[in-house]
Amino acid sequence: MISRLYNEILENKQRILVSTAELKNQLFAMVKEKLDTKWITYLPPTNIPSKNILAIDGGMWSKETRSGVVFIVDAEAVLYDGRNIERLDDRALIDAFRPGNHAKERISLVMQLMELQLAIKNGDKADLILLDGSLAKKIGRHKVTEKISDIDDVFTVDDIISLKEGESEEKMHKLLVAENHYAISLLIEKYREKLLFISKNSKSSDIFGQPYSDVVVLELFTQGIGYTQPMEKTIEDKYIVSKKASRILSNLKFYTSLVRLDKDSRILKFDFFEREKLLEFINTLAAISVRGYPYPLLEVHKDVRISRDDVKRVMRLLGFKPKQEEWWPSQFL
Amino acid sequence: MISRLYNEILENKQRILVSTAELKNQLFAMVKEKLDTKWITYLPPTNIPSKNILAIDGGMWSKETRSGVVFIVDAEAVLYDGRNIERLDDRALIDAFRPGNHAKERISLVMQLMELQLAIKNGDKADLILLDGSLAKKIGRHKVTEKISDIDDVFTVDDIISLKEGESEEKMHKLLVAENHYAISLLIEKYREKLLFISKNSKSSDIFGQPYSDVVVLELFTQGIGYTQPMEKTIEDKYIVSKKASRILSNLKFYTSLVRLDKDSRILKFDFFEREKLLEFINTLAAISVRGYPYPLLEVHKDVRISRDDVKRVMRLLGFKPKQEEWWPSQFL
Repeated sequence: MISRLYNEILENKQRILVSTAELKNQLFAMVKEKLDTKWITYLPPTNIPSKNILAIDGGMWSKETRSGVVFIVDAEAVLYDGRNIERLDDRALIDAFRPGNHAKERISLVMQLMELQLAIKNGDKADLILLDGSLAKKIGRHKVTEKISDIDDVFTVDDIISLKEGESEEKMHKLLVAENHYAISLLIEKYREKLLFISKNSKSSDIFGQPYSDVVVLELFTQGIGYTQPMEKTIEDKYIVSKKASRILSNLKFYTSLVRLDKDSRILKFDFFEREKLLEFINTLAAISVRGYPYPLLEVHKDVRISRDDVKRVMRLLGFKPKQEEWWPSQFL
Repeated sequence: MISRLYNEILENKQRILVSTAELKNQLFAMVKEKLDTKWITYLPPTNIPSKNILAIDGGMWSKETRSGVVFIVDAEAVLYDGRNIERLDDRALIDAFRPGNHAKERISLVMQLMELQLAIKNGDKADLILLDGSLAKKIGRHKVTEKISDIDDVFTVDDIISLKEGESEEKMHKLLVAENHYAISLLIEKYREKLLFISKNSKSSDIFGQPYSDVVVLELFTQGIGYTQPMEKTIEDKYIVSKKASRILSNLKFYTSLVRLDKDSRILKFDFFEREKLLEFINTLAAISVRGYPYPLLEVHKDVRISRDDVKRVMRLLGFKPKQEEWWPSQFL
């Protein structure tokens, strides 16, 4: 960067810090009243009996090469009994797509489907099933003029049927959405009351209606363990692609709460199906959270995430050269 | 990542490489005929007299803090006479926005405006003015029901008027677009025939109509210096926000060519106003390109880009702690 920018920063630093502090004060004035009614501080009881918790997460990485998008996906299910983590089941895939036509989104649908399949297969072993990510995001917002039933009678938890579609990427994308919807419907049908979707990055601002997300508001102005009252949500029929899945998913009600599991920790979003289960979930998870994040989800995340070192190794395995044109102008060389 | 993924990669590596090679062959079959007619190989004459070239670029960085988006922007103009780079002029700014409401886009409009202002101020010193980025992208696609003239009579090359708008972020965004449009119109009015917009990341697929961009097609299947015939484009009136700017910009014709300046180098997109100038541009720039990229643009880019080290220093200057919650699950910790 040019040296004049340093001077600019030094001269204006104080003004900038004051102005961000002012922004914070303005925000506080806007949300103060609502905070008192919406945020409920809570002290979970100690000596909560431990439960069998299934935690599932996935990882993905893709590289747009000159002739296609190569990608890898993995997913794992671990079982935590209050003392030990047992690695129950996992999935892994490497494949290549043509670029464009929602390549990235298809890859993320593959990862999500693997997670759902692991949950369906292993859910019976647990009292509580934790999935990473929000329910609404897993459903997505793919408007379709007509629901399809291509997947409905061939669905299996061991394979991804949609990937066999070789002709049209558009079709494959639609099939993947349908296959995910089918898996979600099956999962809910089997394990409705013990399902908990936990997301770290909720952007919604329904509660406080500010340009800042509700999570930011709560993280700025609350500190202790607590939650927001469950808000009822409905899965809209128009977004459901699989015909059979829509019998269960269309117009299905679920609940959303923002939760802090430990003092000074970050806010999580919980999606679940039985309103009165919220405190039970918080009691169970607050006891086993690591700085506010459920321990089994953290462990499974560590296993599946594809780190920079993994990427380097994978690139070597596949014979890709690392960053060929380092001289090429780019913002963050 | 889980170990099963390694096995999966080793077992499927060959299949994946074959399948990407097949994708490449399929693509070649689709574009072969068009390639012969659309791509023109060219050998620029040697001993081209050197010109005075003005090259302008900008850099930006922003950080979403809990209470606002802090950002820094810089821009610089250099003059190259065929032998030396002279740093003519620069600009720098640090400020903070509330998050949301197009904060990132407003920051990038600020950077772009600084570049345009430097071009207007210093354009008279050069035979050729190089700007980084495509003309269409600088215009943008902001549909407005009514053009505004707030900027038109107060525009100056030394200040950014829109940043004084303190009430509404929406308004500030619209003003910034108008101010950019006004600057572009002024620049074209003054220096029309010596303006050349160069972009490195054109995604368009107008020429070959494939899911792969035209740049990818050309980089895969051509090697030498060359270009595609200039395609006429029109700036659409509906996207112009400043009333006065629309007198010059609305329905203005310009030309676009994809160009390779050096053997085996990458493809650039040129936007310019006089069709017959293309070969002159190529002749001048091929002689001073570094692996296919014009040397003065590369030099100015190095000056303005905000590197990782810069970011670290800036964060320290502003008193931000580096990555506070490293334990927090994220895909690429």
